[in-house]
Amino acid sequence: MTLPHTRPEPSALAYVPFVSVDNMMRMVNAIGAETFITGLVEYIESDFRRWPEFDKTPRVASHSRDGVIELMPAADAENYGFKYVNGHPANMREGYQTVTAFGVLSSVANGYPLLLSEMTVLTALRTAATSALAARFLAPRDAQVMAMIGNGAQCEFQALAFRAICGITRLRLYDIDGKATEKAARNLRAQGFDVTACSTGQEAVEGAQIITTCTADKQYATILTDNMVGEGVHINAIGGDCPGKTELHRDILLRAGIFVEYPPQTRIEGEIQQLDDDHPVTELWQVMTGAAEGRRDAKQITLFDSVGFAIEDFSALRFVHDRLKDTGHYVDLDLLADPDDPRDLFGMLMRAGGGAG
Amino acid sequence: MTLPHTRPEPSALAYVPFVSVDNMMRMVNAIGAETFITGLVEYIESDFRRWPEFDKTPRVASHSRDGVIELMPAADAENYGFKYVNGHPANMREGYQTVTAFGVLSSVANGYPLLLSEMTVLTALRTAATSALAARFLAPRDAQVMAMIGNGAQCEFQALAFRAICGITRLRLYDIDGKATEKAARNLRAQGFDVTACSTGQEAVEGAQIITTCTADKQYATILTDNMVGEGVHINAIGGDCPGKTELHRDILLRAGIFVEYPPQTRIEGEIQQLDDDHPVTELWQVMTGAAEGRRDAKQITLFDSVGFAIEDFSALRFVHDRLKDTGHYVDLDLLADPDDPRDLFGMLMRAGGGAG
Repeated sequence: MTLPHTRPEPSALAYVPFVSVDNMMRMVNAIGAETFITGLVEYIESDFRRWPEFDKTPRVASHSRDGVIELMPAADAENYGFKYVNGHPANMREGYQTVTAFGVLSSVANGYPLLLSEMTVLTALRTAATSALAARFLAPRDAQVMAMIGNGAQCEFQALAFRAICGITRLRLYDIDGKATEKAARNLRAQGFDVTACSTGQEAVEGAQIITTCTADKQYATILTDNMVGEGVHINAIGGDCPGKTELHRDILLRAGIFVEYPPQTRIEGEIQQLDDDHPVTELWQVMTGAAEGRRDAKQITLFDSVGFAIEDFSALRFVHDRLKDTGHYVDLDLLADPDDPRDLFGMLMRAGGGAG
Repeated sequence: MTLPHTRPEPSALAYVPFVSVDNMMRMVNAIGAETFITGLVEYIESDFRRWPEFDKTPRVASHSRDGVIELMPAADAENYGFKYVNGHPANMREGYQTVTAFGVLSSVANGYPLLLSEMTVLTALRTAATSALAARFLAPRDAQVMAMIGNGAQCEFQALAFRAICGITRLRLYDIDGKATEKAARNLRAQGFDVTACSTGQEAVEGAQIITTCTADKQYATILTDNMVGEGVHINAIGGDCPGKTELHRDILLRAGIFVEYPPQTRIEGEIQQLDDDHPVTELWQVMTGAAEGRRDAKQITLFDSVGFAIEDFSALRFVHDRLKDTGHYVDLDLLADPDDPRDLFGMLMRAGGGAG
């Protein structure tokens, strides 16, 4: 097919800024990972504090034998955002990521996308930011040691966020796969953490004021048993995030003050799927605004039953969108049709082919 | 920031084929618009015939004062697809498209995207293909003349599809905006149609065996009144496609055999939102498989109450994905993180910055 030289170029309206994985990594490294996470925490907290303004919906999940594909939309009066994310635990054996993601931020006023971004790296950062933000409200004040059970892709991001936001510098790592622990220990020591590699979960939790569980099996598992959790501990439970997948023994839940993102989603996906539907939980955003109590006292076990909610992705997309101009780490993508006359889509198509239109 | 030369290139797994608007137009023009639509009809019919195999859900809509943003997912055992689409009737006044769209096709087995594609142009083509496919089962056998009320962006695509699939060559156009009719008449005459520009809706429907209504106002409107619709006519109602938006007078619905895509969605969005919830309708896929009757006799008024369903987009994405290699009209996009070790996302990020990881 020969294209005429007079073929019109798309107008500026046709282009959407796209942040590839490569550009996301450039942006994170240019800003600095901990500074980036601190920025995410600010955006997430700011959006959580105006929670009632959001159009919220539980994620739309398509489950299959091997995993799940989800769409996570959220909107306020100005912006609409959604994330596409999969979860396929068996992928790692084939050399694929368990979780990959991308997302879009749009203008509510005209529906046009403002940003298309990779979100595999960004989700790891926003998940860590949300965990650390919750811990700032819930963990014991003097926390210095964090146990991390499950040392996969999310592990180091959590550590970085807890250092940036909560001052955690000492880590005790455990994974059923010793290679995962080796990997995480190497990465985290390079980041200046005091790391202890442990050979059991029990050993990992010794002396820890915060316990982060982040394992990937798509099944009911008991990463933490009741006797492993002493009084005053804050549990940051990341891995139980879909129906049929939990990490904590039910008895721990019965002893803990439970804090969640969005109850309609967490009841289905979180640790609390093990409990009665009316078991009391506190919404994290209400702790932030002061409408609900956070940690009650030094002896309370607090649990952030995190499943990841669409507003966190919305905040992350807003943050990246606001950094585009400063950092320049994006390219423009010809994603939208933009005919001279909006009614003349067909004419645009025909002229593109060099024919009459 | 200086990047070391040893910075690893992303592997093949990191890339997703992307069809821009420009490449979509190249692909359509290379294949030929009517041949492309005929191909879409084959894919859509093939998917409709195996309707029960699909994971179906009504679209997930976020309504605002000025419009709507929707996500439309569908999946079978092999593929998952979704479309992002907005509808903002006031956009045209600002030089923006009323509807823009893009979509993704993925592998159910591992959740990885296989294709990211513009879908503004593609949606226009698939909507036309679906209408013509429905008409092949429902319109009078000898139909030659189609009235088209509403001559906006979708108009010419409908005409092309009805010629390719149903042999329609004579068109009677009407729009409240005479400039829209002028535009469509010019485009369609250039495509070899016998076009009559009409000055009222009543004039347009005279002698037509098929009436296509495709207007864009987000409100209840009466594009067709009862006296305008004679016996034996097939009505292809495209424009009523969201809550509060209809085009036909209720009395027409009471006289017609009504055919729909997916009842749970059409009850909310289609012309039949004007009827009782239990008013009988026939599912188009069942007409295709022979499980339900199509047109009963020559005198019946048939109505395809089209709102657009996610499986049509799924079919369109499959079609485009299957044409990628033949046509070559795509680029590879670095959308997915692909670390050497899937657990070592953090190490990938650190190495990208030239630091230890």
